[in-house]
Amino acid sequence: MGHGISPLAPTTVPTLPPLRGVRLATHACGIRYEGRTDLLVAELTPNTAVGGVLTKSLTASAPVDMCRANLKGGKARLLVVNAGNSNAFTGQKGISTVEATVSAGARVFGCKRNEVFISSTGTIGVPLPAEKITNAFPAVFSALKEDGWAEAAKAIMTTDTFPKAATRVATIDGMPVTINGICKGSGMIAPDMATMLAYVFTDAALEPAAVQTLITAGANKSFNCVTVDGDTSTSDTLLMFATGQAKHRYVSSAVDPRLTEFRAKLDDLLIDLAKQVARDGEGATKFIEIKVTGADGDAAARRIAMSIANSPLVKTAVAGEDANWGRIVMAVGKAGEKASRDRLAITIGGVLVARNGEAVEGYNEAPVTAHMKGREIVIEVDVGISRGSATVWTCDLTHGYIDINGSYRT
Amino acid sequence: MGHGISPLAPTTVPTLPPLRGVRLATHACGIRYEGRTDLLVAELTPNTAVGGVLTKSLTASAPVDMCRANLKGGKARLLVVNAGNSNAFTGQKGISTVEATVSAGARVFGCKRNEVFISSTGTIGVPLPAEKITNAFPAVFSALKEDGWAEAAKAIMTTDTFPKAATRVATIDGMPVTINGICKGSGMIAPDMATMLAYVFTDAALEPAAVQTLITAGANKSFNCVTVDGDTSTSDTLLMFATGQAKHRYVSSAVDPRLTEFRAKLDDLLIDLAKQVARDGEGATKFIEIKVTGADGDAAARRIAMSIANSPLVKTAVAGEDANWGRIVMAVGKAGEKASRDRLAITIGGVLVARNGEAVEGYNEAPVTAHMKGREIVIEVDVGISRGSATVWTCDLTHGYIDINGSYRT
Repeated sequence: MGHGISPLAPTTVPTLPPLRGVRLATHACGIRYEGRTDLLVAELTPNTAVGGVLTKSLTASAPVDMCRANLKGGKARLLVVNAGNSNAFTGQKGISTVEATVSAGARVFGCKRNEVFISSTGTIGVPLPAEKITNAFPAVFSALKEDGWAEAAKAIMTTDTFPKAATRVATIDGMPVTINGICKGSGMIAPDMATMLAYVFTDAALEPAAVQTLITAGANKSFNCVTVDGDTSTSDTLLMFATGQAKHRYVSSAVDPRLTEFRAKLDDLLIDLAKQVARDGEGATKFIEIKVTGADGDAAARRIAMSIANSPLVKTAVAGEDANWGRIVMAVGKAGEKASRDRLAITIGGVLVARNGEAVEGYNEAPVTAHMKGREIVIEVDVGISRGSATVWTCDLTHGYIDINGSYRT
Repeated sequence: MGHGISPLAPTTVPTLPPLRGVRLATHACGIRYEGRTDLLVAELTPNTAVGGVLTKSLTASAPVDMCRANLKGGKARLLVVNAGNSNAFTGQKGISTVEATVSAGARVFGCKRNEVFISSTGTIGVPLPAEKITNAFPAVFSALKEDGWAEAAKAIMTTDTFPKAATRVATIDGMPVTINGICKGSGMIAPDMATMLAYVFTDAALEPAAVQTLITAGANKSFNCVTVDGDTSTSDTLLMFATGQAKHRYVSSAVDPRLTEFRAKLDDLLIDLAKQVARDGEGATKFIEIKVTGADGDAAARRIAMSIANSPLVKTAVAGEDANWGRIVMAVGKAGEKASRDRLAITIGGVLVARNGEAVEGYNEAPVTAHMKGREIVIEVDVGISRGSATVWTCDLTHGYIDINGSYRT
């Protein structure tokens, strides 16, 4: 889109190792973009377990409907992701495109139709001819390789300014297993599902039901705690694939104590990816962490934190490097959750600026001002009711957001 | 703030006639602004009935708390409004300021404490010394006059770029009555109360309970249907005063058939004022009317319309003159209300651009493009479920909003 890399991008992109049971290929189909790849295909070994979380949008795209249906089978052999056209709000044509893509995928890659998962991201409302994708399948099949995660992360980007990837190693039964994740998303990012597209792969040997439980729990701590603009995509998709190629004994339950370390590493990876989405928020110049404590339960805390994170007035104040805690008070007040105006305490960059319902007289403004000039802003709010807490991540609202979104289609 | 008048401002400010039972005065107290008035005092004749709607914010300001308490009495003699400091989140100091202002007002203007109504608008979290206001009372008392509505509308402005006023004449029992309204607000504007401050005055002779019913119903059709940024002020206040100086017989019930015309004119005036707020949305360059039909009830329609109106992606698309109906689909989908993706129809500027879940093939883009270049954008959405409908008003999201809000305090 002609916009530079986000100033909040990680300084290095992590190198993801090959992962047993996954082969990747990318291709330039020319769906919307010129001179770059726009198709990712991941081939998964037989008996790969799959779980996922999909957008709650009531106008979800045809690919999302298909993923929701195929998740019931619990098995995956093929993931096909295209960028540039979301195949959303394309009516019967969109459904036909998904069906044709699934059929061709099953035929060329040799699997069942209900083992194929498709995601599309990009412009809404423009028909996506299936041939644009399926014509590439023979070449893609020949190009499959065990490496290629960096290319995979790049092929699914739309307005993203940097590829998003993360990797972790955990042990199960003393055996090392790998978790690789890639995702894309920078606008139309909101809770319930907060990413647009994210894929997690592991060689752990897990029952599909366990995969589903793990990814649902993980999403609630990560992608559902990040927001850029409060807008919810029609295509949001998070899928987790477990190829079962690791050497440990099969695990059938997500709460099996043997998964303790795996769960922690998976959650950590998901949070890592989710934060990368906020760091690539359209036009972002500041990464914002918002911690709410003292709420009437964790869910209430999360709603208050999201109210702050989605407030245009808070986000523009941060963009202007203004420690305008009055707007934070406003956002707490509009969240609709219990909060004590007269016990409210607000800390910015570690400095208590307001407590007991008013400004802290004579607080040292210098460190707060210095904090606001930085790239990483931390806002802590205690609402003085009970013990609920939550942490969410977002970015500021800048001229860049207007530039990008005022001219997306044209 | 150094920003020019909104390009959406009405070409003429209406001239409000004197209204029997109301005397006005303004004053420059230097609370925050230099070289302009920042205090409005309205003296109301004895036995003036009052009703009102106040912010649902859980961090409401001390003046709002006081108005809520005094509304129970149903009578008003004095309205005091200052601009530049909202006296919100000012703790015990804020409460003391309100009490001191009420006491001084009751003493100087000769009324009961529970007949005084105070509003403050402006910066949050900065103590407001009562003397800034009360020291002006003797001079203000001497300056009271039956005219002066234009000055009144100006004295309550903050980031507003034009004063907002409206007037209507209705008949009750064949006798003419006048309704005058003034309001202010341009940011931190959202449903449940959508304005920051609005005051309606009439010489009609109405029971307080009737005033309360009329203003609550009217707010739901007007100020609660307008949004600029989805943010809810801690100070939102809408008060209606009925001085009872008109010659018709006293009306005790809001549903009295004698009030049919009055109700219609009142609602029309409130909608007029509410639209003026959207027209002065911070940084606005386009006024947007969003009509939703086919919803599962009027409340569902309003929530869908507000989801569209508050979507940063829809608002930036309009700013970019882009008829990006895909983002409208997205906003319908995230509203959480029933909508049929495959029966959805979207009309922009009177041209049907999408129906039955996909773009209308070969629709004439020229009139749509021309419409998007205009100042007044009309978006109609039928969600294909039932017969609920609603209309809301908002404005686009532009660089101007970022400019204004990224540097408000500094």
